[in-house]
This record gives sequence, C-alpha cells and structure tokens, in this order.
Amino acid sequence: MSEKLSDTARKTTLEPLLENGWAMVEGRDAIHKTYEFENFVEAFGFMTRCAIWAEKWDHHPEWSNVYKTVEVTLTSHDVDGLSSRDTKLARKMDKLADG
Amino acid sequence: MSEKLSDTARKTTLEPLLENGWAMVEGRDAIHKTYEFENFVEAFGFMTRCAIWAEKWDHHPEWSNVYKTVEVTLTSHDVDGLSSRDTKLARKMDKLADG
Repeated sequence: MSEKLSDTARKTTLEPLLENGWAMVEGRDAIHKTYEFENFVEAFGFMTRCAIWAEKWDHHPEWSNVYKTVEVTLTSHDVDGLSSRDTKLARKMDKLADG
Repeated sequence: MSEKLSDTARKTTLEPLLENGWAMVEGRDAIHKTYEFENFVEAFGFMTRCAIWAEKWDHHPEWSNVYKTVEVTLTSHDVDGLSSRDTKLARKMDKLADG
C-alpha cells in the first residue's frame, strides 16, 4: 500500500511539518504534535473532523485528549515507520486545526 | 462543586464499576478502563457519544484512541481524586459502549 518515506521525501514533505510544530518521536520513526484549543468542544470538534478524514483515507492516528489538549502521534504500522500517508494526514490535521 | 468519594460511596458506586472492567490507577485516586470495539468507526462513535455527555455534565475524561481501542481515565482534578462525577460518567460510558 505504501512505502517508508525516502530521504528525498523526508526533505520535501517531512521538514515543513517539523517546522510547523511536529517533532520526531524518540526511538520511533513517528511524528508527534500537541494541539491546544480554546476548550473541550473545540478540541473534540477538531478530533471529529480528523476522524472522518482518517477513516476516509484508512489511516488512523494514535491520539489522546485531556480537556482542550489533543496529542497526536502518526506512523504507518504496515511499513514500520513514516510513509507518505503520515505526512498527508499531518498536513490535513494542521489545516483542520485552523478551522 | 463536588467532594471526594466517601468510603460508603466507594462501596456502593465504585465497587460495581471495578467489577465491570474498571480498575484503580496505580498511584492516583482515579479509575481506568480499556474499551475494545469492532473498528475505528465504532470506537470514535463511542467517543463522540461520550463527548456530548462529558460536555453536558462539564466533566471530561482523559482518554486515548488507537484504531479500535479507547483507553479512559477518570478523576476529578478539583477534589484531587474520585468524586461522584466520575462514577456517574463511568456508568454512562459503560452504557454508551453497549450501543
């Protein structure tokens, strides 16, 4: 279905994410971001918008929520690391977080 | 707004939850449960139903989701431990998990 991100793709698609609040997870080929919202309704609303895209693209985040905070980790279990599906979903989540 | 669960309340309202898949969190006066669903849509559907009640009751879970698994921790930060709002929300979540 997909392949691990190539070195070239890491430069072109991963780096912009790392400059936008995403960070590599220690010890895993995965990326992580913490989103903060105004309140629970905004936080869960964001999760709901993301959930629909995640299901549509059949690529699901590992995520947690405590009140207005949402923590997200993305990786592709089938390739045991980051694939283009992660960078695509990360970009979508960043857009959805903006409204 | 609420008080820490009394010893009596722990017998009457907490024990039934501990017999229904909830467990005390080590080192915290909090309860935890892992819910497993058929797939992501069922898991996130459950979270959505819970989110509406959590907001309505102004009492929110700490929770995480990975595909079809939802992990929930409940505690009342304002009383630094379990209150009746946790046992009430736990019972509601168990009902919502059943459909």
